[in-house]
Amino acid sequence: MVQTIDIEISEVGPRDGLQSIEPIMQTKDKKAWINALAAAGVPEIEVGSFVPQSLLPQLADTAELVSHARHIDSLTVAVLVPNLKGAQNALAVRPHKMTIPLSVSETHSLKNLRRTHDQVLDEVRGIRAAIDELETAERPKLEGSLSTAFGCTLEGDVPASKVLEMAEKLMAAGCDEIGLSDTTGFASPRQVRDYTRNIHQLLGPKALAGIHLHNTRGQGLANVMAALEVGLTTVDASMGGIGGCPFAPGASGNIVTEDLVFLLESMGLKTGINFEKLFAARQLLQKALPTVELFGFTPLAGLPKGFSPATPQ
Amino acid sequence: MVQTIDIEISEVGPRDGLQSIEPIMQTKDKKAWINALAAAGVPEIEVGSFVPQSLLPQLADTAELVSHARHIDSLTVAVLVPNLKGAQNALAVRPHKMTIPLSVSETHSLKNLRRTHDQVLDEVRGIRAAIDELETAERPKLEGSLSTAFGCTLEGDVPASKVLEMAEKLMAAGCDEIGLSDTTGFASPRQVRDYTRNIHQLLGPKALAGIHLHNTRGQGLANVMAALEVGLTTVDASMGGIGGCPFAPGASGNIVTEDLVFLLESMGLKTGINFEKLFAARQLLQKALPTVELFGFTPLAGLPKGFSPATPQ
Repeated sequence: MVQTIDIEISEVGPRDGLQSIEPIMQTKDKKAWINALAAAGVPEIEVGSFVPQSLLPQLADTAELVSHARHIDSLTVAVLVPNLKGAQNALAVRPHKMTIPLSVSETHSLKNLRRTHDQVLDEVRGIRAAIDELETAERPKLEGSLSTAFGCTLEGDVPASKVLEMAEKLMAAGCDEIGLSDTTGFASPRQVRDYTRNIHQLLGPKALAGIHLHNTRGQGLANVMAALEVGLTTVDASMGGIGGCPFAPGASGNIVTEDLVFLLESMGLKTGINFEKLFAARQLLQKALPTVELFGFTPLAGLPKGFSPATPQ
Repeated sequence: MVQTIDIEISEVGPRDGLQSIEPIMQTKDKKAWINALAAAGVPEIEVGSFVPQSLLPQLADTAELVSHARHIDSLTVAVLVPNLKGAQNALAVRPHKMTIPLSVSETHSLKNLRRTHDQVLDEVRGIRAAIDELETAERPKLEGSLSTAFGCTLEGDVPASKVLEMAEKLMAAGCDEIGLSDTTGFASPRQVRDYTRNIHQLLGPKALAGIHLHNTRGQGLANVMAALEVGLTTVDASMGGIGGCPFAPGASGNIVTEDLVFLLESMGLKTGINFEKLFAARQLLQKALPTVELFGFTPLAGLPKGFSPATPQ
């Protein structure tokens, strides 16, 4: 069945969510959760991160999850790679997409990735070269994700000009596209609108992969509204809102997939997602992680009486 | 000091919040809370409701609160009145504004107010006559609030045409303005945009007083974004998100004043509100109602490092 999607939701819970919580989800539970998310119609899942196991033991099974998820029809399998070494490990199992973060705040970059901007850009060039050694059809997309784009818990304001400068440098270093990431939950709708427009103008609309928003101050869906207004069509979200950034003190909480799907579908925008199956995937997550608090209002309130989603259910 | 405000926040916690919770807040605590809200710069507060004490003992002290709040400089003192009798009791203590709800869903109207539409419109005409007996300068504004405008937990869909019809009838019956109320948390940004535009076209922009949104499905601030887009400048909110509608099963949670103020100020829109004093008012509320769960993210996360609100602090 071919289905048109208006807005693509990229589920980052298995990566951004699970890396931020203490309990380690079992690999079999992760596979079942990924299956359930895909069965609900989620088109893209970031299944893990190729970071050293010593840093994030929660994500030690990422390679196995990529191999597993690659067998799911029509699912885009994404991973995070912190550097060339991580990318090489990722390339061995062939994800469809690799994202390398670059913190626009260099202070945060040093704390989070232990690298200067120039060092990160060197890694990007190395990854580009490694990708280009593959057959064209085998090459994953490479996204450079601009972390702390909207402000930094360490530096405070991050100049808009710096965001543009780093976007340009990431593309020049070999990224296929770049993403905007509100690592710290500082973003306002005005910034989301302005930065999206700026990047569209500077690099063309195709260069902007999507936006990653946190709900630290409850502004997540308001920021999504601003992103939609300026034509962004890919939005990251995390089931139950789990996750955030463990290296940015005080920041917590991704936007909640379930509430985002309701927002979009209620506006007549197709996500391709089935609510009942999505809520079933949440049950599965909660069962696998009984001590973790899940956020989100829609699963608790249920769908409004007489509600007609845009996506055929 | 004269201060320009771009968006007026009407705090409904003392009415909509306190009527929905079990503990009864003491009158002295309510007065202190109202003082603190006003001191923070909140321009309008709905201090209570003139309903029979047997129905809502939580609000039995409304007349006393109106008299108290009327002494606070530059504060607009609003109350809810369910009918002519309530309005007569209200008029005795001179609020600046009275709001009478009319449920666009007649099923909900019968359940909530135990009246048909025609009966509510009769009450409005009676209230109009009672107001007009006062000297011009003494007359409070009368708002007709369209409850269940965006959908009903009992009827499901509420036709947009019915919303317009009832808006027109409320104005014809003597309201000075009408408000849109998402009693059930069904509203989508598309509806908010469409209904606001429809009412602007039908009755002129001045007729639409503002919007009352719930956060039942986490969509509150996304709906605010839609309201701003079409030029609404008054938004209801409740400190800590307390409240909702006790007669609409499954519906709960007003939008959170604290997060709304952050949204607006971060977009450069002046609310006239001081964050530190607003958070102090929240502390006061929590202390007076220790068993009630307060919602909202901004007070917990704090303001972003380097944040510059639009309102001088």
